[in-house]
Amino acid sequence: MQIKRFDKNPILTPADVTPYHAGFEVIGVFNAGVAKYKNQTLLLLRVAERPISQVENKVYAPIFNVTENKVEKIEYDLDDAKYIFDDPRTIRQNDKTNKISHLTSLSYIRIARSTNDVDFEVDDDPFLYPYDQYTTYGIEDARCTQIGEDYVVTYTSVSELGIGVSAIKTANFEDYVHLGNIFAPENKDILIFPEKVNNRYYALHRPSSSSLGGLNIWLASSPDLISWGNHKYLFGTREGSWESQRIGGGLPPIKTKLGWLVIYHGANENSRYCMGAALLDKNDPSIILARLNHPILEPEMEYEQKGFFGDVVFGCGSVLDGDDLIVYYGASDTTMAGCVLSISEILKRLEEEL
Amino acid sequence: MQIKRFDKNPILTPADVTPYHAGFEVIGVFNAGVAKYKNQTLLLLRVAERPISQVENKVYAPIFNVTENKVEKIEYDLDDAKYIFDDPRTIRQNDKTNKISHLTSLSYIRIARSTNDVDFEVDDDPFLYPYDQYTTYGIEDARCTQIGEDYVVTYTSVSELGIGVSAIKTANFEDYVHLGNIFAPENKDILIFPEKVNNRYYALHRPSSSSLGGLNIWLASSPDLISWGNHKYLFGTREGSWESQRIGGGLPPIKTKLGWLVIYHGANENSRYCMGAALLDKNDPSIILARLNHPILEPEMEYEQKGFFGDVVFGCGSVLDGDDLIVYYGASDTTMAGCVLSISEILKRLEEEL
Repeated sequence: MQIKRFDKNPILTPADVTPYHAGFEVIGVFNAGVAKYKNQTLLLLRVAERPISQVENKVYAPIFNVTENKVEKIEYDLDDAKYIFDDPRTIRQNDKTNKISHLTSLSYIRIARSTNDVDFEVDDDPFLYPYDQYTTYGIEDARCTQIGEDYVVTYTSVSELGIGVSAIKTANFEDYVHLGNIFAPENKDILIFPEKVNNRYYALHRPSSSSLGGLNIWLASSPDLISWGNHKYLFGTREGSWESQRIGGGLPPIKTKLGWLVIYHGANENSRYCMGAALLDKNDPSIILARLNHPILEPEMEYEQKGFFGDVVFGCGSVLDGDDLIVYYGASDTTMAGCVLSISEILKRLEEEL
Repeated sequence: MQIKRFDKNPILTPADVTPYHAGFEVIGVFNAGVAKYKNQTLLLLRVAERPISQVENKVYAPIFNVTENKVEKIEYDLDDAKYIFDDPRTIRQNDKTNKISHLTSLSYIRIARSTNDVDFEVDDDPFLYPYDQYTTYGIEDARCTQIGEDYVVTYTSVSELGIGVSAIKTANFEDYVHLGNIFAPENKDILIFPEKVNNRYYALHRPSSSSLGGLNIWLASSPDLISWGNHKYLFGTREGSWESQRIGGGLPPIKTKLGWLVIYHGANENSRYCMGAALLDKNDPSIILARLNHPILEPEMEYEQKGFFGDVVFGCGSVLDGDDLIVYYGASDTTMAGCVLSISEILKRLEEEL
């Protein structure tokens, strides 16, 4: 697979983003949803900020206090045996549940704009910021699907109540209407198809179960983008492969002459995240026509291998320009990068598996 | 709270049910959904069957093979250190995920019919039996809501893909149409309200998360009973109480003059299951008007305390007769029992908390 990474990669780094919170630092600008709006390409950046720690042996977890309408810091002592601090992203309970107690950073969505697809300017203010009891731990990994004149943005809402998915609808990336919590916890990686199929909207989703079942991609459909049903298992992790531990939707599905092209992420037991491709039937997206065995994008460059959480390429959106698929992706949970893939080449490889 | 348990309790035991599978035994007939149909009261029984084990030190997990359309047995050696056998209901992986590998019994739904609310005759054949890749581990805990002339039956679909909730619609408890998988995994205890509120259907649900969030009751709404959205956290477990570990909907909500009466189950850290009560606003079920601190039904009788999984009362349906609420409930995951509660007494207690 020929991959033309941008020469300028990474195209956005934490240094390019002014912290929104006083006393905080930006540790990641990554996993952006993508929209083509008027003559601009918009990145719906996930910006992660954390308190600048002043005290040795302490870590501070930021949470949004809905009542007070401000961010607070929860202090943890790194010696506290009740918790596990070995994942830089989370503070986990040191018990058999191993559940997340808090996140070490607060994420929200900020827009960056470009007229040449490569040079982006970041807005000063957030586009989507914690606002209710479902977003107190942050808003993560926006995905954007244009449907007619509207754009539907889905995002992960994280709070002590769980990790679910909410959505808004906008026509101008200024005002928007809330579509509510569209998927109950625990779920992530909702990717809405850009048009109805047989008069229903479709979406990929990735439920996480506590008792039974893996981290696999499911399909759902909806009459109105708000309510979702007909949940179907679509495809799953593959033992011993680059996608052995978890998979989830990446870019909103792309309509091609062969069917719906799904570019998704997968990770192995070392949490090395790559991007893979599959093809779904045009008229019935529950039918998997083909799926590549090998990734189409892997963490190979230094910025993809080193960072806050290394060895990660995580695409959440793309722009289609003729045969060029410009994929924007988060690298190492730290920066944004871009690359150009050839749709026809991906389809050719998928066709060989048909 | 005055509780008039049936003199005949338990009203159905495994001895009353002929196994459907050759070489199997019925170990539980419990957690029945309830419907008033014509002049009869129907119990939509969960019947759990397991292979009659012939070999010492082995346990057999039954699963439904969709392709072959028959039940198969997976053999486990009780000495196999890869698994944990300490819960009689499940075989779990002996690793940090602690996930379920298989269930020790296969459940499906069978109807029992009565003309006097107490003496039930069990149908010979299943009403709902595993039929697809989502039900290979069984169909559990049906709930039934009458909406106009139709009855909507929701049930837990268990398979290696996860624990989700599916539904059917029937007018006669013979033929039915599938409504699909209405809630993605992991979810249970879907209770559909008997009528629309502000032109939308409502349901309680109980998601289970792997990373964040407890086992709490949520609310969702739907335009068509198939697709569900507007997921909202409703109320949760309470530390140090009878409902400290998990709660979930019990009976379909009952419309009263004060609002929607929700009778739900809760369990503490010893997995002792009781039934509690809460009251939701008539016009906006996301508003909790009151919630009792103490259970309205606890495992006190021998059949409620001893059985396949003891110390459990688990109501899934009721019949309303004037002020009498006839609650049918599973006892110790083994038998069916019944009791009569007074709606006005429950409401009076809830009113004291308003």
